[in-house]
Amino acid sequence: MRSFLDRDFLLDTQTGAALFHDYAEKQPIIDYHCHINPAEIADDRHFETITEAWLGGDHYKWRIMRANGVPEEYVTGSAPAYDKFLAYAAALSRAVGNPLYHWTHLELQRFFGYDGILNEKTAPLVWELCNEKLKTLSVREMIRMSNVETIVTTDDPADNLADHRRIRDEGSCPAAVLPGWRPDKAANIAKPGFTGYLRRLGDAAGLPIRSLDDLYAALSGRMDLFDSLGCRVSDHGLDAIPCAPGSESLAEGALRTALAGGSVSAAEEEAYQFAVLRFLGREYARRGWVFQFHYGAVRNTSSRMFAQLGPDTGFDCIGAPGNAAKIAGFLNTLEEDGGLPKTILYSLNPNDNAMLDSVIGCFQGTGARGKLQHGSAWWFNDTKTGMEEQLTSLANLSVLGNFVGMLTDSRSFLSYPRHEYFRRVLCGLLGRWAESGQVPADLEHLGGLAADISYGNAKRYFGF
Amino acid sequence: MRSFLDRDFLLDTQTGAALFHDYAEKQPIIDYHCHINPAEIADDRHFETITEAWLGGDHYKWRIMRANGVPEEYVTGSAPAYDKFLAYAAALSRAVGNPLYHWTHLELQRFFGYDGILNEKTAPLVWELCNEKLKTLSVREMIRMSNVETIVTTDDPADNLADHRRIRDEGSCPAAVLPGWRPDKAANIAKPGFTGYLRRLGDAAGLPIRSLDDLYAALSGRMDLFDSLGCRVSDHGLDAIPCAPGSESLAEGALRTALAGGSVSAAEEEAYQFAVLRFLGREYARRGWVFQFHYGAVRNTSSRMFAQLGPDTGFDCIGAPGNAAKIAGFLNTLEEDGGLPKTILYSLNPNDNAMLDSVIGCFQGTGARGKLQHGSAWWFNDTKTGMEEQLTSLANLSVLGNFVGMLTDSRSFLSYPRHEYFRRVLCGLLGRWAESGQVPADLEHLGGLAADISYGNAKRYFGF
Amino acid sequence: MRSFLDRDFLLDTQTGAALFHDYAEKQPIIDYHCHINPAEIADDRHFETITEAWLGGDHYKWRIMRANGVPEEYVTGSAPAYDKFLAYAAALSRAVGNPLYHWTHLELQRFFGYDGILNEKTAPLVWELCNEKLKTLSVREMIRMSNVETIVTTDDPADNLADHRRIRDEGSCPAAVLPGWRPDKAANIAKPGFTGYLRRLGDAAGLPIRSLDDLYAALSGRMDLFDSLGCRVSDHGLDAIPCAPGSESLAEGALRTALAGGSVSAAEEEAYQFAVLRFLGREYARRGWVFQFHYGAVRNTSSRMFAQLGPDTGFDCIGAPGNAAKIAGFLNTLEEDGGLPKTILYSLNPNDNAMLDSVIGCFQGTGARGKLQHGSAWWFNDTKTGMEEQLTSLANLSVLGNFVGMLTDSRSFLSYPRHEYFRRVLCGLLGRWAESGQVPADLEHLGGLAADISYGNAKRYFGF
Repeated sequence: MRSFLDRDFLLDTQTGAALFHDYAEKQPIIDYHCHINPAEIADDRHFETITEAWLGGDHYKWRIMRANGVPEEYVTGSAPAYDKFLAYAAALSRAVGNPLYHWTHLELQRFFGYDGILNEKTAPLVWELCNEKLKTLSVREMIRMSNVETIVTTDDPADNLADHRRIRDEGSCPAAVLPGWRPDKAANIAKPGFTGYLRRLGDAAGLPIRSLDDLYAALSGRMDLFDSLGCRVSDHGLDAIPCAPGSESLAEGALRTALAGGSVSAAEEEAYQFAVLRFLGREYARRGWVFQFHYGAVRNTSSRMFAQLGPDTGFDCIGAPGNAAKIAGFLNTLEEDGGLPKTILYSLNPNDNAMLDSVIGCFQGTGARGKLQHGSAWWFNDTKTGMEEQLTSLANLSVLGNFVGMLTDSRSFLSYPRHEYFRRVLCGLLGRWAESGQVPADLEHLGGLAADISYGNAKRYFGF
Repeated sequence: MRSFLDRDFLLDTQTGAALFHDYAEKQPIIDYHCHINPAEIADDRHFETITEAWLGGDHYKWRIMRANGVPEEYVTGSAPAYDKFLAYAAALSRAVGNPLYHWTHLELQRFFGYDGILNEKTAPLVWELCNEKLKTLSVREMIRMSNVETIVTTDDPADNLADHRRIRDEGSCPAAVLPGWRPDKAANIAKPGFTGYLRRLGDAAGLPIRSLDDLYAALSGRMDLFDSLGCRVSDHGLDAIPCAPGSESLAEGALRTALAGGSVSAAEEEAYQFAVLRFLGREYARRGWVFQFHYGAVRNTSSRMFAQLGPDTGFDCIGAPGNAAKIAGFLNTLEEDGGLPKTILYSLNPNDNAMLDSVIGCFQGTGARGKLQHGSAWWFNDTKTGMEEQLTSLANLSVLGNFVGMLTDSRSFLSYPRHEYFRRVLCGLLGRWAESGQVPADLEHLGGLAADISYGNAKRYFGF
Repeated sequence: MRSFLDRDFLLDTQTGAALFHDYAEKQPIIDYHCHINPAEIADDRHFETITEAWLGGDHYKWRIMRANGVPEEYVTGSAPAYDKFLAYAAALSRAVGNPLYHWTHLELQRFFGYDGILNEKTAPLVWELCNEKLKTLSVREMIRMSNVETIVTTDDPADNLADHRRIRDEGSCPAAVLPGWRPDKAANIAKPGFTGYLRRLGDAAGLPIRSLDDLYAALSGRMDLFDSLGCRVSDHGLDAIPCAPGSESLAEGALRTALAGGSVSAAEEEAYQFAVLRFLGREYARRGWVFQFHYGAVRNTSSRMFAQLGPDTGFDCIGAPGNAAKIAGFLNTLEEDGGLPKTILYSLNPNDNAMLDSVIGCFQGTGARGKLQHGSAWWFNDTKTGMEEQLTSLANLSVLGNFVGMLTDSRSFLSYPRHEYFRRVLCGLLGRWAESGQVPADLEHLGGLAADISYGNAKRYFGF
């Protein structure tokens, strides 16, 4: 019988524990994709209460509260902060097996020094303790305590990156805070607000966008700016990876139609997205940037709640599996164009694990170990079992030792223990393999791989 | 080394055993969806032989016999009962790992007091023993021995529910036997027999059906009858969940076409089904009924055997995964209509687990803990591994403690030990989590959740 | 702590070890589907170096080398054999968890007597040792050492089977080497080279092919030849299983169009493939041959590498899941035609496991135990976890004891230890079930099933 969340949490073998404590645990964190607001780092924000820190924007927590029948007033509404915290504690208590159960208690241990359980009975004590601690626990302190070396935020091409400049110029942030290039709005031709966005982008780039060439020029100019502030990585979040070779004129026509206020067909949308992504892929390859692609979400499923709360509030779900032929076709196009960038693919549908691991194996090559990567278990899959399945599939079909590992993808400064969580899952898996005779129990060798997957591979891959 | 099917069957930790024996095991059974014939309860049927009780209508068993090369004569045909039993015993013997291997031996232990193994050698002994026991083992005795509190059958809207009335009025059945509303025939506009069915439904409701409004009035009237006999739950078994907003006139036209003897297109079929389900959803919400949806089967795959034996004889298979956008779209339509009922979704394709768990999370809310539910592992997934995968996915993405748990979905009165099986799987899982330090080993807390999932949640959710 | 790859490798219970060592291990091997070149058996080829034996044609190994960033020159190119071997050893070292890690070390133990680890440090030693051993280790010696009883190769209907005749007539090969019928080129109407192929096939059969009836006559004639040399099994490798009832004239038209140099539509392609497979299915049923169908690959994804290296060089990936309705529809057509042959279905997409296991259950019947089979975990799924998932799903939904078990599907004469690997996985699974009380720990009964799955079932099923 093991205690909950003790020193060897998730490490069920001695080898696993040794791999974690002697190799993985001490590695710095490279959080190469997240959604935290750089302004809050620049300002070194302090949170007033644990409710603000935890429930201010975390739709993972909102969802389990709603699943516990909590009225929206106590989730995102105007209820008092303490009552919201109580409602979260009550929901968490019934959510055994949910990663939030682990993350929440890891965060209580690591940042607040609380080793107990959070439930309705302990909630008053935890409330006091956390709020007291938050007086000295600014976001930079959270970053420092977590041994974070590099943070990559998610930024729009039209953004002026003023916050990144402030952080760089001020010079005292414990981690490098780099912009991440997320040009989804320039690709989402069929979504409301597209033409307005192109105007903003054109303004930022100093040239009006009337054609694909204009768009490419504008994007290229903004990439120069991003690059100058240390950007090494893009991120794309389309519903699906487009592949429509030979559709250049359709793409050009689609852009003109959209700019003229018309609506575009599904085929035009795909042609346009394919053209834009193809252009960007060439640019990434040329600049040595990494192409990240997150696909497979169905977003804003509840019209009622979208009208009330807007996007990214906990009403998205897992969509259809990816289309292997299109994904491979897209990568092939980039390769034929003369250069496939380093690429990381993430599917929201966990059924894509083996497919993706087989696809990346078709486009590996010189220039990088693991040039093509299958990204760490994402969003709804960011769980112990989700990670184990991704790692196992990747090991089965590729070279696990070259994996660039974990990222938080989070909106919360308290989420860095998810790297610890990942490393424990990883070392747990390697330890079980070793102790059951499935890999040689060579601590130095396995420890080297564990350290690489925790830190070294990402360091080399992204070139931070 | 553990003995086969001993007291702690499937309970591989002390904590798991304690959770089962001290909390889950003693809970009554609410079998909120099954296919047993209420007439047999009303009549308190006795079976002559174990062949009649086991092989009279159980296509699970028929399938493993066929997979063992048994001629149909010994499966559903005219071979002597004893020979059929022998053929089943021989097939079972090779079917290690199949849930039938567990169910069969659980039933032999629980109902017949036989602790040995069934195989070709022991079959003569088991045959005698079971048939002797069946002399006193009526279906009501099976229900009583199983501590069943509530049974919900599957009934057609045109049914007069005479058997339910008999059982209620007679008053001595050890369990409440309630009708379950299954209006598939009214939705299956493209299937043979649709117009004849609408005539029967109209006759039952006392009004001819010539339009959607007529149909709605007829269904509503029948729902009043069902409600008066304690119905709290519907069940739908379409191939896929329809979603076709804005297609009301298409639906109306489809109905008129079908009534006139014409055939309807796939788009018309979906429009019609969407309209009918949308109407029913509003009714369920208004009445506080639960919306159950089982989707994803491909039925009657073998023309030869369908001609010989008809439907539900073991020739169905797992179909395509569900379409997340449509499922979410359907739920969103109901929500926009002013009221989404409590809803349980079941997919026959196990690849839908994570998708469904993510979809239900988008429509939770006030009115019930776990208002949207991902139903227990269904049909081909009703296995130890299938249950563990459904429970793990549900825990990962939702609040496991609010799950309404198990149902037999069975045609057999001997199938109640499947509730025990489910509870053992559940407690086994919770026990492993506790003893490996993944949840606090708080027996009272975990035991409370186990009891809730075994019984309390369903009791509250359905309002029995 | 267990040693890597010791005597009880993958056998984590005493029962599992007993099942393997006392029952499964000693069974001969029937390798009923592989891609080795019969000419090399006829010639009793010797390999000069371990690089030639291992890296001469094995795209599994090439893929992990590429995933380790190895330039193509060291993979398939002109680099020195020793340097290629070093590059493989270095890649393998990082590929823990990959089946190649196990296969490679199993092969080093079984054929070369090397019990150590292959890595960059030991590579020079292993290089010397293997090359020395290869002087006496011909392909027939590899076959003899592996206790192979029967080998079925993969052969084109236009092939004259001269090598099979040589082996048979010469009489000293330790295993029966039988042709396997692979008529894909006759079905791939939409691929380049189709008309040229039909000419070659017509030449081989001695009749020109101008219609479907001509094609059928030619194929039938070639099947007579194959049958005379012991062929009992076909293999098909189309992208998907076609099902297009009522499309005979479309199929006939498609063939005439293709022969006239025209291009066919997707519907014509499916109609044609359905017609050809339907004809072949009838022939297989009549002759008692087994119908094998491998589907779900996306092939030749990289245009650049296809131009450089051609097909089957490591640039294929897992495609879409199978369409259950079409697969069942195809089997139903054959059944309605008067005879469904014994059939084995393999999907490259592991998400199809449960679907396939449910489909085969609809078409079982007399004539064979397990007439319909779900083939062993294939290609990218040929891993410990892939096998466990296939076996578990098969056990859940069918009769595991009737499974025909493993095949190498390999291009390498050193790959026979994959049968040992499969048997260890199988016995490991059965052992865990027994020791945890999930099946009776009856060694004789479980051992009989293990021996059947390892050898006896295939022997009976194929009729070798």
